[in-house]
Order: sequence, then structure tokens, then C-alpha cells
Amino acid sequence: MKSDVEISQNAELQPISEIAKKIGIENQDLEPYGHYKAKVSLKNVDDNQGKLVLVTSINPTAAGEGKTTLTVGLGDALTELGANPVLALREPSLGPVMGMKGGATGGGYSQVVPMEDINLHFTGDFHALTEAHNTLAALIDNHIHHGNELNIDPRQIEWKRVLDVNDRELRQTVVGLGGRTSGVPRQDGFDITVASELMAILCLSTDLIDLKERIANILIGYTYDREPIYVRDLKVQGALTLLLKDAIKPNLVQTIEHTPAFIHGGPFANIAHGCNSILATKAAMHYGDIALTEAGFGSDLGAEKFMDIVTPKLGKTPDCVVVVATIRALKLNGGMDKNELTTENLQALEEGAANLYRHVRSMCRFNVPVVVTINKFNTDTDAEVELLTKLIKDNLGLSTYISENFAKGGKGAIDLAKGVLSAVNESKDFTPVYEADDSIESKMDKIVTKIYGGAHVELSSKAKTQLKKIKKMGYDKLPVCMAKTQYSFTDDPKVLGAPTDFTIHVSDLLIRSGAGFIVALTGKVLTMPGLPTHPAALNMDIDENGKITGLF
Amino acid sequence: MKSDVEISQNAELQPISEIAKKIGIENQDLEPYGHYKAKVSLKNVDDNQGKLVLVTSINPTAAGEGKTTLTVGLGDALTELGANPVLALREPSLGPVMGMKGGATGGGYSQVVPMEDINLHFTGDFHALTEAHNTLAALIDNHIHHGNELNIDPRQIEWKRVLDVNDRELRQTVVGLGGRTSGVPRQDGFDITVASELMAILCLSTDLIDLKERIANILIGYTYDREPIYVRDLKVQGALTLLLKDAIKPNLVQTIEHTPAFIHGGPFANIAHGCNSILATKAAMHYGDIALTEAGFGSDLGAEKFMDIVTPKLGKTPDCVVVVATIRALKLNGGMDKNELTTENLQALEEGAANLYRHVRSMCRFNVPVVVTINKFNTDTDAEVELLTKLIKDNLGLSTYISENFAKGGKGAIDLAKGVLSAVNESKDFTPVYEADDSIESKMDKIVTKIYGGAHVELSSKAKTQLKKIKKMGYDKLPVCMAKTQYSFTDDPKVLGAPTDFTIHVSDLLIRSGAGFIVALTGKVLTMPGLPTHPAALNMDIDENGKITGLF
Repeated sequence: MKSDVEISQNAELQPISEIAKKIGIENQDLEPYGHYKAKVSLKNVDDNQGKLVLVTSINPTAAGEGKTTLTVGLGDALTELGANPVLALREPSLGPVMGMKGGATGGGYSQVVPMEDINLHFTGDFHALTEAHNTLAALIDNHIHHGNELNIDPRQIEWKRVLDVNDRELRQTVVGLGGRTSGVPRQDGFDITVASELMAILCLSTDLIDLKERIANILIGYTYDREPIYVRDLKVQGALTLLLKDAIKPNLVQTIEHTPAFIHGGPFANIAHGCNSILATKAAMHYGDIALTEAGFGSDLGAEKFMDIVTPKLGKTPDCVVVVATIRALKLNGGMDKNELTTENLQALEEGAANLYRHVRSMCRFNVPVVVTINKFNTDTDAEVELLTKLIKDNLGLSTYISENFAKGGKGAIDLAKGVLSAVNESKDFTPVYEADDSIESKMDKIVTKIYGGAHVELSSKAKTQLKKIKKMGYDKLPVCMAKTQYSFTDDPKVLGAPTDFTIHVSDLLIRSGAGFIVALTGKVLTMPGLPTHPAALNMDIDENGKITGLF
Repeated sequence: MKSDVEISQNAELQPISEIAKKIGIENQDLEPYGHYKAKVSLKNVDDNQGKLVLVTSINPTAAGEGKTTLTVGLGDALTELGANPVLALREPSLGPVMGMKGGATGGGYSQVVPMEDINLHFTGDFHALTEAHNTLAALIDNHIHHGNELNIDPRQIEWKRVLDVNDRELRQTVVGLGGRTSGVPRQDGFDITVASELMAILCLSTDLIDLKERIANILIGYTYDREPIYVRDLKVQGALTLLLKDAIKPNLVQTIEHTPAFIHGGPFANIAHGCNSILATKAAMHYGDIALTEAGFGSDLGAEKFMDIVTPKLGKTPDCVVVVATIRALKLNGGMDKNELTTENLQALEEGAANLYRHVRSMCRFNVPVVVTINKFNTDTDAEVELLTKLIKDNLGLSTYISENFAKGGKGAIDLAKGVLSAVNESKDFTPVYEADDSIESKMDKIVTKIYGGAHVELSSKAKTQLKKIKKMGYDKLPVCMAKTQYSFTDDPKVLGAPTDFTIHVSDLLIRSGAGFIVALTGKVLTMPGLPTHPAALNMDIDENGKITGLF
């Protein structure tokens, strides 16, 4: 089989204007960026007409689950069946591209294209976020430098700076050195752009005014008297919104089988909600008959947040949830060494399948139709496939769809597509995990017990103090965004499978008043990655004709 | 008269595909960015067919010279005359936009549009440069973190970081704090993106391979043994070039009178050469019969560098130089207070005119046809215009063209356009100020005596030490890029007019081995601006329909 990059570079793309035309986007609403990318204007996408399918997975492992690949393949299969699907996916971050080989645009014969552009600067959304984020940082320090009328305490500024670069050197810095004319010395640090609250805000906003209001409500720090300071106090929400006027518009591209795909926004799925923009999902539902969207990491993180944080703003709950697993990853969950996964091991598979059961049951708790699919690798044995299918039937009462779209494209996921088309017409009443009115403690407790399968939530003394502040400030009815390791249901990345009777330890609670949620930190969450010893950048090149090598 | 922004927002733009078609750009070579901006592919622009006109000015003052406005108006006048002109201009930097009201896209009825986009993110070129610059910084620190095979001395790293934000807080920083896993502590700092050597490199490159070679040759620091370290030693020139694969393509827009304009690149005119990209100028000459380009600041800075640094790479010297002056600015040069410039003052005008004479004579030294024009303000009196016209005839033997394009558009610069059309056909032999083979001292001496009208160059002991190093490293035949205040022929911004017998003090010499020049620092050059007490950002807003206010 050809490599991902060979398949992608050999794909015959249709002009983006034709892709747009197929789904009824008028020329005046389409802003081309080159011939194969476009932004789509914001108007008229608020009807939530189409069906909505959410794709999620078991806990991610080093073995790979191929969630994006599966979503793309399912889209192409639905196209094959004439179901008029439109995808809504997250934009990849550029920082990690320089570190590790491999993109975030699917794989095999299930890719979104132009893959190189999407993985590089794309239409500049992340750069606009970086610019807006750092402009706010400069405006805060400038305010302090020029007399500090608002009495901002430089030791209590919560708004760091960002770059879309993996740069550990910038995690902790001292800024404002150089004397009287060069600012006020203080501790600071940089996050990667996708960790910016502005990214979460962009993805949760429904229009420019909503965006501006959310930006106005960002908490940037405290005064010397410990009073909160918001962006609105600096009166720069207009300027920052203006910098995001194009970034807020969804980007249209296509799969290699010409299924339309909106790729827009990409917040972290730990300290943020991990889903593409609401506007992209709305556009997919408006222009398609069936919209497919994907949530970050496993169902415990991305999908839970999609259900509890996104759907209230989206005004629509999923008509079907697809849970993706791989036999390799389940065997890893069952205790196998990651270097031996190509060997048949029925016992490890059976033990590891418990991880899948819990993800599926968690999703069923929302009372939505759930479809299970195995993203098949060519090293999976027939006995393994047969066993897993039986286990799923016995334990969950569900059929299993085998997807081979990585190797075969949309044709490899036709069964799954048929299953999904049938599931979206089962009528069910969505039931959230918690009510909007629940307290923050109760929300965390319900997520941990109902979704993670754990027993307790324990707050550090810092988190308890912060909880009091949150109540005092009136943010105690906001949804909770759990920042937990993606590798485990617990807060320990090494505990795989389906552990029980564990406690989740909340070390701190962060106020994200612009995005509109409280982040519960559990364990260490790295918000600025580093590069490895041999970064992928060392193997990249471009020739005189612009042909790229080493990117994937 | 309407405001700049009213004129710009009311302008009826033609689709960029039509502008492109008019000058013979084929659809396959045009990459639209929305409906009114496009990038143009790199191929087939290397013939230098069209005539080339360079627009420069007297020393800039607080009174404003309107060089861009004049260039745009001259272009529109040439369009009016059917001369098929194409403009090549610099891209504005976004950082300063948040500080001071006012853009860099001309004014009155001589503007390039869409003005808002051009002054904001435009096609993302500067963001790509920011990304590439900071990726290199991260790769350097990552190399040191992972064992430092190249033995790089963290105290001698010359590659800082950049942002396109006016942020004095980042001028001097300490990075790499936070312990063993977060890099190596060291002093660092941020420049504004336009000060990046990558910006100068992008603007001097003739194709992707040239770009890659220049990037490979960037000096990033020294080893503990004081040996130079280049990008090529890190082997990341391919990755960095790849990040600039779109940024290197010239951007096409239009004036409000539909004259095509390439707007591409914008290096500082003090620590860099201050001219738009060579590729934009080549494209303008290829697609137009007459190309108009503009150099930064006064003729002593931008134009001298265009002649001595750019033209050898461009393979073409100007067929005509236009020197722009305003009566207001000359009166300021003649000693008037800047708040009284609307009052007639013939004596100040006559004294200040000496500044203009020196700029014109400096340009005549290159043995190119020189045309003088006055950018007329409505406060200029008839007596002032008459006097200046007479002075120019008496002292320089030249006619004076009065340009009123700010108020009247292209029609206001028809006389100038006719003068230029006649001048470009006078055949002259270009004579550079210095020869490529001259020593660095001799090059500086010739610039100071022939162009600035000064007497001597004096090197600090630091500059003398650096000069020895430069000779040892084999860079002593590179052109010299003078980093001098733009406000004076001297290195003291307060000395206006046409001083004589002064000394230029060179404090340091910087090696820009990628760009291919040596920067001679005179006085203080600020490479990271700050925001003012009341930043323009405070007045900016955008409404629900995306209409922007307060940007200009």
C-alpha cells in the first residue's frame, strides 16, 4: 500500500468552488484561499437541520485508534450511499508538526486534503489567535507600564503569552527586564496557541457579537486588592474581536473522495473542551443532511465535554454516537507490551475489551443511539475479530461494524455507514450527565462516577480555596471541564483497562469566564510541549518546484 | 473631503481575478485569498522587461511626506494615461496598528485596497515569518537541551524571538526557567517580526532555492570555542523554507482606481534594507510596462539601500527616481514649530529646501534621471509653491511637478506621470556609490560622504573588534546596511535640514550572513516598539455585520 503522503499527493482534488456548489454554498458566501481551501461566511447556518453524528473512541494509546481516519472514511461511505454528509473536524496545531512526523488529517485512503496546507498555516486561524492573544498580553503590560490606573497586580496576572511552536524554553520566563522604559519585571510564561482561552472561545461562539462578549468576560488577573480584572475593564474586546473576524469563519476543504469537510478550531481536550467550532458543526448540519463531528481523545474527555459543554450552546444533541476501537489498542489495554501488538493474543483482547465496554456504556447513559466500530488493521487476526464481535454482542448487546476504510477508502466503511443511517432515525431523549443547576462539586462527582466509573472526587486545599472564590464571583453554575490524562479513566496515565473504585484528585480549579467553564485540573497538564531529541524538522525539505518531503 | 476610511470603504473594488486578467496573469498562476487579494505563483517573472521607477523622499518628519500616497497616485495617473503601470509596495506591520491610528496603505483618493485586510493579517506572510523565526529559536534551544552536540554557548546566541506585536515587555527576558525539563536558563529577548533577518531574506530572495540557501547561511550564534554556528549546522533550512513556501509568493491587490499593486514584504529601513520583495518588483516589471516601487524612509536610507543592496540582486537599476517632498516638511526642516506649519513661512521654506537639494543630488550621483514632486496640501500657499518651484529650478536645474492626488486621485498627478514617462526614456549609465570590492570601511565612508553629506565615519572599539571578526570570517566584501535615524542625515534625530562636516558614529557591526549584508549600527535602533498611553486598540470595534470602526 502507498504511504499517506503518496496517496495525498496523488489525490485529484476538485476545485473548492465545485465542492461548495455541490452542497449549495453560494459564491458570495465563499472566500477562496487558493483553489482548494475556502472560508464560508457566517450567515444562515443556524437551522440545525441535518442529523448529527459524534465520533469518539476508547482511551487513546500509543497503538493508535485512527479516530479521524474513521470519521473521514465514514463520511466517504455516506457519500457513496448518496446521504449528503458534511464533516466537521478540528484544525491541527502547527507546533507539534515540527516535532513528530505525522499529521492530523486522517490516513491511508481516508484523508482530508490539501493535507500539507491543513497541517501548516492553513487559512491562518491559529496565527490570528496567536496575534490576538499576545496583543491582549501586550495591552495588559502596557496598561501597567503607563500608570496602572486599574491597579493590576503584576504578580497575579493569569493571562500568559502563546506561540504555535513546541518550545519548552518559553514555559517559564521573566519579562519586563531592561529598566524604566521596557515595562515592569514579572514572572510570565508561554503556552501553545491551542491552549489559549481564545481558542476555546472561538470554538464556542455562535457569531461575532457572542465572540466579543465572551472575550470581554475573560478574567485576566486581579488587582492589588484581589478584585478580578476582565478584558472589558481594559476596553479592548472590540480590537481583539476585530483580529478574529476571519478566523471565526469555518474553513471548507474536501476528503480525497470529495466529501465536503469543515475544518475549524482545535482546542485542547484536557484544559479545554476538545471539539471543533460550533459554527463548523452548524455549517455541516446546514449544508449537509448528515453532519459528522469528532471529539478529542477518548469518550471520557472529548465526548463528555461535547455532551455537557458544547450541546447546550449548539442547540442540538447527537442523533448517534460512534465509538471507535482498534484490536491493537484493546490488547494494549489488556496488558500486552506495545511492541508485540502484531501477535495474536485473545486473552489480552478479552481483558482489554473492558475499556471499550465502559466507553460505550458511558455514551449510552446519555440516552443516544450508540454504534461500535473496529478500525481494522491488517495484523488483526480473524480469530481476534470474531472474538471481539462476540464479546461486544454478549456484553453490550450491540452489533460490531468492521471498518477497513484506511486501506479501501469509503467503500471500506459501507456497513458502518448503513448502521449509522439506521441509528440516527431511532428517536431517543437525550439525558445529560448533570443539570446546569448542579453545583461544581456535584458536576465533578457525576462525571467521575457516571462516565469514568470512579468512586470519589477529592479536592486539594488549593482547589477548595479556589472553589470558595468561584462561588463568591458567581461562577458556581458553570459547566466543568475536566483536565485529566487521556490515557486512563483515572488521573494516572499508567492505569489502563477499566479500573474501579478510584479517586480523582483535583489539584486546582481555573476560571475560564470567557469560554464559560471551570477547568478542574487533575495531575499535571502540559500546556507548552517540547521538541524531541531528533525533531521531524531535521528531515523536512522543499525543492525548487515547491514539492515537500519529510513532512509526513 | 471624506476621511481615508470612508473613501476606502466606499471604493468599488474589482474582483482580483479581473485585475489579474488585465495584466495577463493566468488563472493557474493566481491563488485567490478572498475575492480581492491573491498570491501569484513564482514562475516566469524573471525577465525585467518593464521600466522601473523608484519613489523616495526627503527625511521623514512628523509633518508627513505621503510617499505611499504619492506612489499610488502616480500609478493611477499612469493608468489614466494608458501606460500599464504595476505597483510594488511594502506590507504594513500589524504590531503598530494597535498602537497608533493610521495605516500604511496611502491616503485620500490614493489608496490600495482592501485597506483593512492589508493592515491586519493580509495573506499571512508576516505570521509565517513569525512562525519560522520562532521555530528556529525553539530548535536552537532544543538542540542545547538535548545534549548540545554542536557545543553552542547559550550566552552567545544571536537569534532572538519575534512577535508582530508592539510589546516593550518582551524586549529583554530570561527564558528556560522551571528546572531540568524546561530548557536551559539564559538571557533572551523579542524583536518585532519586521526586524527579523528572515524578513530581509524573504525580500532579497529570487526563488525557493535562493531562499533556502540564505536561510542556511544565517549566523545564529557561537560555540564555547567562539566558532560561528549557522542554520546549516542545525540542518533545518528545509523545514524553515517550507514554512515560507506561500509567504514568498507576491500578493496582488488594487488601488481604488484599479491599478494593480503587488504588496509584499516589509523589512525595516534601518537595520534592514527597507524595500518590498525583489519578487514583487520583478512581478511588477514582468506584468506591467512600468513598475513603481518605493523605498523606506528618506533617500539616505531606503533609496541608497535599494541602489546598493537590492539592484545587484534584482538585476535592474531604476530608469527614474522620483523624490517626494512636502512644503510642510521643508518648513519644519527650516526650523518652524510643527504646530505652526499651516502658516505661510517663505523663509523657513527656503532654508528647509536645503534638505530636498541634498536628497536630489544624492540620487543624481547614481546617474539616473531624477524627477522632483511636491505632494501638495491644501494649506500650502500659492506663494510657497511658486517659491519652491523657483528654488528647485535655480538650485537643481529641475522642473517641479505639483501632485494633488491625495484630493483628486490619479487625475491629480497627470503632470508628474508625464514627466516620469519622459524621464524613463532618458538613457543614463547607472553608477553605484561604492564598488562590491570596496572594504567595509570604504563602503561606509562613501555612503556618509557622498549620500549623507557628512565628513567622517568613526568606529567604536566594539565595532573595530567586530570588523576584525568580520574580516576573519570572510564577510568583509558584503554590502553595508546603515542603521541610522531616519529623521536626519546625521546620526542625531534632532539635526534637521542639510548639516555638513559631521561625523557618523558606528557603535557596532552586525553580521547578517543570510540576508547578505553587514548592519552598521549608529545611535539607538529600537527593534521592539511599545504601545502608547492610549493605544488605538481602545477605540476599535466591529459590529455584527463585520463592519470595522476605529482602525483608521
